Amino acid sequence: MALLRSYVSGRWHTPDDGAPLLDAVTGEEVARISSAGVDMGAALEHGRRVGGSALRELTFHQRAALLKVLATHLTEHKAELYALSARTGATQRDSVFDVDGGIGVLFTYSGKGRRELPNAKVLAEGPVERLSREGTFVGRHIAVPLRGVAVQINAFNFPVWGPLEKFAPAFLAGVPTLIKPASQTAYVTARLVELMLDSGTLPEGSLQLVSGSAGDLLDHLTPQDLVGFTGSAATARTLRTHPAVVANSVRFTAEADSLNCSILGPDATVGTPEFDLFVKQLVAEMTVKAGQKCTAIRRAFVPSGQLDAVADAVSARLAKITVGNPANPDVRMGALASLDQREEVRRSVRSIAEVGRVVYGDLDHVDTLDADPERGAFLSPVLLRADDPDRAQPHEVEAFGPVSTLLPYDGVDHAIELAARGLGSLVGSVVTGDADFATELALGVAPWHGRLLVLDTENAKESTGHGSPLPALVHGGPGRAGGGEEMGGIRGVLHHLQRTAIQASPRVLAAITGEWVPGAPRRVEEVHPFRKSLADLRVGDSVTAGPRTVTQADIDHFSEFTGDTFYAHTNPEAAAANEFFGGIVAHGYLVVSFAAGLFVSPEPGPVLANYGLENLRFTTPVFPGDELTVTLTAKQITPRENAEYGEVRWDADVTKQDGTSAARYDVLTLVSKV
Amino acid sequence: MALLRSYVSGRWHTPDDGAPLLDAVTGEEVARISSAGVDMGAALEHGRRVGGSALRELTFHQRAALLKVLATHLTEHKAELYALSARTGATQRDSVFDVDGGIGVLFTYSGKGRRELPNAKVLAEGPVERLSREGTFVGRHIAVPLRGVAVQINAFNFPVWGPLEKFAPAFLAGVPTLIKPASQTAYVTARLVELMLDSGTLPEGSLQLVSGSAGDLLDHLTPQDLVGFTGSAATARTLRTHPAVVANSVRFTAEADSLNCSILGPDATVGTPEFDLFVKQLVAEMTVKAGQKCTAIRRAFVPSGQLDAVADAVSARLAKITVGNPANPDVRMGALASLDQREEVRRSVRSIAEVGRVVYGDLDHVDTLDADPERGAFLSPVLLRADDPDRAQPHEVEAFGPVSTLLPYDGVDHAIELAARGLGSLVGSVVTGDADFATELALGVAPWHGRLLVLDTENAKESTGHGSPLPALVHGGPGRAGGGEEMGGIRGVLHHLQRTAIQASPRVLAAITGEWVPGAPRRVEEVHPFRKSLADLRVGDSVTAGPRTVTQADIDHFSEFTGDTFYAHTNPEAAAANEFFGGIVAHGYLVVSFAAGLFVSPEPGPVLANYGLENLRFTTPVFPGDELTVTLTAKQITPRENAEYGEVRWDADVTKQDGTSAARYDVLTLVSKV
Repeated sequence: MALLRSYVSGRWHTPDDGAPLLDAVTGEEVARISSAGVDMGAALEHGRRVGGSALRELTFHQRAALLKVLATHLTEHKAELYALSARTGATQRDSVFDVDGGIGVLFTYSGKGRRELPNAKVLAEGPVERLSREGTFVGRHIAVPLRGVAVQINAFNFPVWGPLEKFAPAFLAGVPTLIKPASQTAYVTARLVELMLDSGTLPEGSLQLVSGSAGDLLDHLTPQDLVGFTGSAATARTLRTHPAVVANSVRFTAEADSLNCSILGPDATVGTPEFDLFVKQLVAEMTVKAGQKCTAIRRAFVPSGQLDAVADAVSARLAKITVGNPANPDVRMGALASLDQREEVRRSVRSIAEVGRVVYGDLDHVDTLDADPERGAFLSPVLLRADDPDRAQPHEVEAFGPVSTLLPYDGVDHAIELAARGLGSLVGSVVTGDADFATELALGVAPWHGRLLVLDTENAKESTGHGSPLPALVHGGPGRAGGGEEMGGIRGVLHHLQRTAIQASPRVLAAITGEWVPGAPRRVEEVHPFRKSLADLRVGDSVTAGPRTVTQADIDHFSEFTGDTFYAHTNPEAAAANEFFGGIVAHGYLVVSFAAGLFVSPEPGPVLANYGLENLRFTTPVFPGDELTVTLTAKQITPRENAEYGEVRWDADVTKQDGTSAARYDVLTLVSKV
Repeated sequence: MALLRSYVSGRWHTPDDGAPLLDAVTGEEVARISSAGVDMGAALEHGRRVGGSALRELTFHQRAALLKVLATHLTEHKAELYALSARTGATQRDSVFDVDGGIGVLFTYSGKGRRELPNAKVLAEGPVERLSREGTFVGRHIAVPLRGVAVQINAFNFPVWGPLEKFAPAFLAGVPTLIKPASQTAYVTARLVELMLDSGTLPEGSLQLVSGSAGDLLDHLTPQDLVGFTGSAATARTLRTHPAVVANSVRFTAEADSLNCSILGPDATVGTPEFDLFVKQLVAEMTVKAGQKCTAIRRAFVPSGQLDAVADAVSARLAKITVGNPANPDVRMGALASLDQREEVRRSVRSIAEVGRVVYGDLDHVDTLDADPERGAFLSPVLLRADDPDRAQPHEVEAFGPVSTLLPYDGVDHAIELAARGLGSLVGSVVTGDADFATELALGVAPWHGRLLVLDTENAKESTGHGSPLPALVHGGPGRAGGGEEMGGIRGVLHHLQRTAIQASPRVLAAITGEWVPGAPRRVEEVHPFRKSLADLRVGDSVTAGPRTVTQADIDHFSEFTGDTFYAHTNPEAAAANEFFGGIVAHGYLVVSFAAGLFVSPEPGPVLANYGLENLRFTTPVFPGDELTVTLTAKQITPRENAEYGEVRWDADVTKQDGTSAARYDVLTLVSKV
């Protein structure tokens, strides 16, 4: 008898006994589970005190680097996870979605953290806001890690991806995680957590696991904790109104099962490749994970004239799906997670069938390969058809299994109206080659969806499909789907940070954010800042160079040399008629080229390359005879964790003889660490 | 007897009778209020069907323009609002915060909408995410208006600013508003709404008003509606758990009164200007609006050695505050909003006084100018002092009036710990000239605050002060402060939009977002796109020009001409040693200058100016002999509402002879409409 352990307060806790968890395929006992004896309050406090403190000692880039090591470690051990996953009824293909998909989230967050966040402990978010006329009072937002624990309460269907998609952004943010998996498949998650802890990458307290009931866990929440839930809408309601969640305004995010739709475009008639793509995708969504996905297609809308053809084509394809023991490579669809789950699905199908009919599948019989259809939670795929799309059940009753309902629509407005009757979905899809139809439909149904896929022949080969949330995109949807938002790249990290508006003098704002801001003091020393390595360079280090007069001859020459003979640089009469110029002006490219000539320090040194410019604005025209001066100031310094150099962003301010700004931009350079 | 009206479902509704609202100064009846007879469900549906549809017909810029007209109209009528505001107990100075502050929010959102949002009905948010190797499958987020109503439930203390700070971002987003003001001061809001409707700028249904009880308003919420609440933490809890809010995952944001703190820096001893700033600000926060601000300072932390000095200085300053009829210009502090409110404040002060003592003020007596201190809700400012900062009451009991408590601290860690005991605040401030102290403190208390002000001698003159939320910065705080976020510039607009991840082929993604994306088709015609006005130009219009060979002579010449003699362009040996180059490379500025020479169409025409560049990356080095080709593609077109031109953003892609990208950037131009 295997007893699932919890990892809390720095040690593994083994219960005395627990409730049996049965193999979905054979009905044999896999493990027993109980959280009896776990001190939930102490676990949360351990996460806050020990885990949070350790994570906050690291920069975003350091945490990103650890995620990569962790992902690599899990990749090496994924066979173990596949094996356990099979006992949940999942085929090898299903496990790839769960296991490899979860590991992929870690890799993606590692990359995004390194590329899109500073190598710092605080994130300066958004632009500097000028709050006063003279500029002595400015504002900017910072984002800092919440001082609590990200509590995740997961669903049974993705025991690996589920915890990892919540863990990655929390960890990158610097917030410790406590995982509470759904019991039915908790033995997979328990092994995952063992592997994660064994990797040696995670600071103590940054990851905890409660196997079994949540007990009084939520009672111990503080305003700094977060709760992320995936599961049923009913449970989401209960958790959202928990007294401690409400009293503490705890950040609560829910992804609830929703009645997602897929829509066949009117152009995609029988015989078109889009028709086939629709049918193929629908069957995949019905059968992957035996349809136990909160993103699966429950409602398939097709032009009313296509209903018969689609029913036939989907049925024919479903007939080829072999159901049975996922250990057998010929099996295309495994078992549901439990016998209880199967009963629940049967009840839901019967409810929908009251307003339609089953066109494929038999609720009470399925042929299975290598498995006992009664001991294992096997169920035939079931395709329903409801010819009256106005009836309520198909839009309200979710059969959380290999089940979908075909519904007819007439015209784009009708399709939009029907899609909205799901009252909020995680995802929708439309299969069409018609960009106008796709646009009208997408903009019409967007308010009701967290994600929309437009599938066509151009992207079919590379598309990740209707059912797969991706870490770069938000996962979550309005209304019935829970109203939450997870992942979405750095958005998911921000969810774990407190955004705080800072109002201060430029000097103090620069100190707090770690980035130089206009109006803050500049440090001018003998040595040119380009001669300083990252070891010596400080934010605010600055050089002013010039003036250099821009002559008419310079402008003429630049026109001739580059070929940029735009009339404002070459034709006095035409330039005079331009309302922005009123006469010949220097090329913007000439201004920034001369500025570079002024601020550069040419000899070999720590500055390795100028790899780009950002936010360049030509603020006033430069006329022949104007004198240019440039001031370059180190604005942000980002040493790389895995290289001998880092990025330095410089503020470049080109002014004219009267002090007015001619151009302002950020110069991006690579600079050696030593 | 004036009966306050509601404006719902396209008409004014007058109740038969209502509860009396009394003048805070004289106790006379001002008006009666009741929402009896208002059909709340119909009002919400009217907002959704009529108001929402009309708003969604407009672009962000068109809505921004209407906000400006509205703000100008209200500015012309603000004297009326001042007069009514005085009856709530507010002085002229208080009214300026409320009325001018509210109008200022409209102006700010008008400007931000024009500058920071596209002139379109859909917002493409964030970067294009490449989701596949070949680039046929890409993703991006769009944000579209929710199809519901923004229901705002306001507090009594800011009857003008309160509704406007919630209305402005909703309107700009394209979401209709229904205002439910607190009864006590609803006559000011009712007049505000009359003025807004009279302005003729608001599409029917985009603004509604319920004067009186909310009745069954919330029962009619759908997943597309939003609720914004400002008021007590207890009411926030009730609203947040309303069955319709929970069942529909309604977006709910709360700004609750919080126990905000101000911290005197250890450097700011008696005699320093910072000491005086701290005292002055504390007195202002205690007395503006008679301290009835959810952002007021309730806890003033000072170094323990400074406690006596601060108590004396604050008391001396409070002694100069004249209390009385706000109509008298000599009055510095008016009345509380009601006699009930005064009793509530007295109870709270007595509770705090159990663990401290009153050092200034008398709960039961105040001298008033031009007013009867018993008929009007007058109260003396009250300064408390609690020498043991560990006692609970000062951190938990809020006296919502001219009341603050002095508390001692020892060292920065202690100050951070004490500040956090408020369990979440809207705002905190620190007064110090020491940037290190400010930084350590700000980063330490940030997780518990929505906004932090660092006040010093550099910004004192221009600072807007501790108590004033600004539209460019977020307003809201964690935990006790409600966990909400409002304003913060465009963030407040996004709060009213549904963010939806779109996954599609580049062609379809471009159609849905209205912006060209890499991989989408380009349109190449005889006529150069620079010869097209906005009337003719379409997203995707493109020109390819080149090749042009970059010679060693070009590089030498550019070095000499611009002065940019960086060794990678001039010194073969040193350039060869640079790991990124391995030999002489062309200047990045030369590459973009040559590219401009290639793509330009020099004759006068609709393209008026190049006003900037963005996101420039030099992706691979350009060596002598390399041939450059540039493709320029219209990416985003933004006609201005109030000018004869607009902005066009072009994608510029500079490639070398083997097709590799040498530089990629956005060129920003101004182009004529005709």
